[in-house]
Amino acid sequence: MENLDQILDSFKFDEKGLIPAILQDFENGEVLMCAYMNREAVQKTLTSGLATFYSRSRNKMWIKGETSGHTQEVREVYFDCDADCLLVKIKQNVAACHTGYRGCFFNKIENGKVITVGKKVFEEGEVYKNA
Amino acid sequence: MENLDQILDSFKFDEKGLIPAILQDFENGEVLMCAYMNREAVQKTLTSGLATFYSRSRNKMWIKGETSGHTQEVREVYFDCDADCLLVKIKQNVAACHTGYRGCFFNKIENGKVITVGKKVFEEGEVYKNA
Repeated sequence: MENLDQILDSFKFDEKGLIPAILQDFENGEVLMCAYMNREAVQKTLTSGLATFYSRSRNKMWIKGETSGHTQEVREVYFDCDADCLLVKIKQNVAACHTGYRGCFFNKIENGKVITVGKKVFEEGEVYKNA
Repeated sequence: MENLDQILDSFKFDEKGLIPAILQDFENGEVLMCAYMNREAVQKTLTSGLATFYSRSRNKMWIKGETSGHTQEVREVYFDCDADCLLVKIKQNVAACHTGYRGCFFNKIENGKVITVGKKVFEEGEVYKNA
């Protein structure tokens, strides 16, 4: 990708050097999660084919699924009109959310209450027990 | 919504008091845009039924479509496992993007190049000429 540097130069990373990325299921369109990438993580995501992020709490780059095996295989990558947000369409292995739900958006606000939608596809303790 | 304050209290707004919101077409699942809400904008979005944001450049709250008429009618609102991102499913009137494309993610990275996907549904100059 000879022009990748130029593309990355056009991105508006925030004051911490990060850009939000929306992860969407390539097959059924479900929005699975939102996480942050630094420049290197965007590069890795595009060149390795596995969604890679920057953890704001751990201050390090991480490949989604490196502990759980729940990787995200990159199918298509888009960025928005302002070049300050990415949309990554992926093949999600098992689940995107560490809590056991397939996606992170399982809290729905309905009539002023929070209800849980979706069902767990794994038990958190089982997957991350050696983490 | 008597419990709305409690729900909003659980949200993790960033150091600027903002939370990102992903806007998704309720009908076809297209991710249309990403924008930021402050606490008041989340409240307005939930109570008025029209997606409302906080502009980081203009430092003010704005109702999507107040100039263009391209409003976003709220159908469902979700938040993620960390309570630091919202997913708002909407009925999009005309288009979400100010450039004339239906959604903001019309830039696709393919083989190290940026290609434009989708087609314009309006001409920017016509809609915003009196703005």
